[in-house]
Amino acid sequence: MKKYNIALLGATGAVGQEMLKVLEEYDIPVNKLLPLASARSAGGYVKFKGEDILIEEATFDSFAGMDFVLGAVENDMSKKFAPAIVKSGAVFIDNSSAFRLDPDVPLVVPEINGEDAFKNKGIISNPNCSSIITMMALGGIAKLSPIKSLVACTYQAVSGAGQNGLMELENQMSQIAKGEEPEVKVFPTQIALNVIPFIGSELDNLYTDEEMKMQNEGRRILHAPDLTVSCSCVRVPVMRSHSIAVTVRTERKISVAEANEAIRNFPGCRLVEDYKGRNYPTPLDTSDQDLVWVGRVRDDLTSDNGLTLWCCGDQIRKGAASNAVQILKKLIS
Amino acid sequence: MKKYNIALLGATGAVGQEMLKVLEEYDIPVNKLLPLASARSAGGYVKFKGEDILIEEATFDSFAGMDFVLGAVENDMSKKFAPAIVKSGAVFIDNSSAFRLDPDVPLVVPEINGEDAFKNKGIISNPNCSSIITMMALGGIAKLSPIKSLVACTYQAVSGAGQNGLMELENQMSQIAKGEEPEVKVFPTQIALNVIPFIGSELDNLYTDEEMKMQNEGRRILHAPDLTVSCSCVRVPVMRSHSIAVTVRTERKISVAEANEAIRNFPGCRLVEDYKGRNYPTPLDTSDQDLVWVGRVRDDLTSDNGLTLWCCGDQIRKGAASNAVQILKKLIS
Repeated sequence: MKKYNIALLGATGAVGQEMLKVLEEYDIPVNKLLPLASARSAGGYVKFKGEDILIEEATFDSFAGMDFVLGAVENDMSKKFAPAIVKSGAVFIDNSSAFRLDPDVPLVVPEINGEDAFKNKGIISNPNCSSIITMMALGGIAKLSPIKSLVACTYQAVSGAGQNGLMELENQMSQIAKGEEPEVKVFPTQIALNVIPFIGSELDNLYTDEEMKMQNEGRRILHAPDLTVSCSCVRVPVMRSHSIAVTVRTERKISVAEANEAIRNFPGCRLVEDYKGRNYPTPLDTSDQDLVWVGRVRDDLTSDNGLTLWCCGDQIRKGAASNAVQILKKLIS
Repeated sequence: MKKYNIALLGATGAVGQEMLKVLEEYDIPVNKLLPLASARSAGGYVKFKGEDILIEEATFDSFAGMDFVLGAVENDMSKKFAPAIVKSGAVFIDNSSAFRLDPDVPLVVPEINGEDAFKNKGIISNPNCSSIITMMALGGIAKLSPIKSLVACTYQAVSGAGQNGLMELENQMSQIAKGEEPEVKVFPTQIALNVIPFIGSELDNLYTDEEMKMQNEGRRILHAPDLTVSCSCVRVPVMRSHSIAVTVRTERKISVAEANEAIRNFPGCRLVEDYKGRNYPTPLDTSDQDLVWVGRVRDDLTSDNGLTLWCCGDQIRKGAASNAVQILKKLIS
């Protein structure tokens, strides 16, 4: 069996750490694992298959001999290193949003448009976490009838802001328990015991860039260039699973029974019919695993061809690390 | 100035306690205040205008000589006492959902359909908390063009489940801080560090009764019998302000500028343009006051005649106690 040299660009962040875990869990045949990070983190070690592996500083020369580079860094770093990665001959599977709308870069959720991955020219983008989870929930329905539009409201976990986001909520929780004033550093205002209806930065159309990802990325993932989405992205005091309430309009009417059947049969989805007496998932139920859980499918009362539903998925796993490793797995399968 | 005899049915709950506070704050001319509760709570005292007032047990004979009865009890208790209240000649302003859809009972948000209150036959219903806050946010827009439909996703505070809901979140927070397993008694599953997409009980159409209130009550408040609403009600770990992300479709296109102007001028609303550097409210910002704060008004990208917006309001105040006292104030004005 062929074994692969895999570099991990951004080995110390929340998503990078999870990618290591998922590479191991999925039993990806790894010849050499090369953890890369900024100069600040280089010199430390990551654990992989029981071994301590030295973290090297990422440079333009780091990628020679690599088959794949998994990217778990911010946009600026992705842009900086992408040309060197492509030149080295490795395939760059990038979790940043830097290349997601580049027509030369496939944007892939393996269960939905996995074949697109093979059309890559050296870079494949991993979609936004809320986009992945929502599109997974809708993947079965999209096979029954083209999706025309979505109204999506997110309930996004703090892990979307990385380790710092997780720490901010933890700190604020313990400050509140001690009767102290919660300290605000990462989010625009207190997140513990609060929700914040603003993620990212505001665009000319008054949506945030985070909100527009659902439409822009949804079009590419579903091959639906006319899809329209009104999205409201809201941060909630939850650790690591995102939830989305979606109203979806399709070309023809899909019944609740048809939709449930399609979701039940869609790989990577779990239709929640009776979980601990509930017919819906909560974010806590779906943490630390890869499935997107869907429940409460019902008719949209405001249109003839619509459905309303609820879905949850782990933001760090299917929303980021697992999806990226699944793309890699697809390419080597 | 005429002074009124006012009974408070359910004086010890979260809403009842707030009604006392609001009666005082609004300087309602009270002759006699009569706090009523179950036998279990009777014999205790409430504070009103610096005095300790004895809580009496509610009986069918309690209402003689009262001008108004403010109801802050569950449906069964409202139904039990309503005939005796009406017979006594008092006007019953009821916060339960028992009579909200009765065509003989006005369902009133004073800023929107305050005149309906005068058509009462002895009972006036206070709408559901999420309905009040959403309709307040839309009241200005509804004056510009009839509202056809809403897609609404709520972010509902635990105070919606009363004192027990508030205590459950507090307890779970402190249990988590101590590393203990959070105890679940009030909500269907853990609410701290979680969200729960199910409030109330499920109906035949798979919506919950709580979700259908937005359509059923919205129709009566807005005088829009054909209004359709697809609502997703979600409990979030927030103490006492509800938030709602709404996509609203109107008969004619309303521009963002027109909508903002209408919201800015609507009594009881605050358009958030720059609050601590933000153009949106969070539930924490809006606790312990009566205004409904609205922000992030933008075009609905999925329809020609739609807008998407965000609103927050204190669930115990404008969502319940203050709205009821405002109805009373309207009647005596």
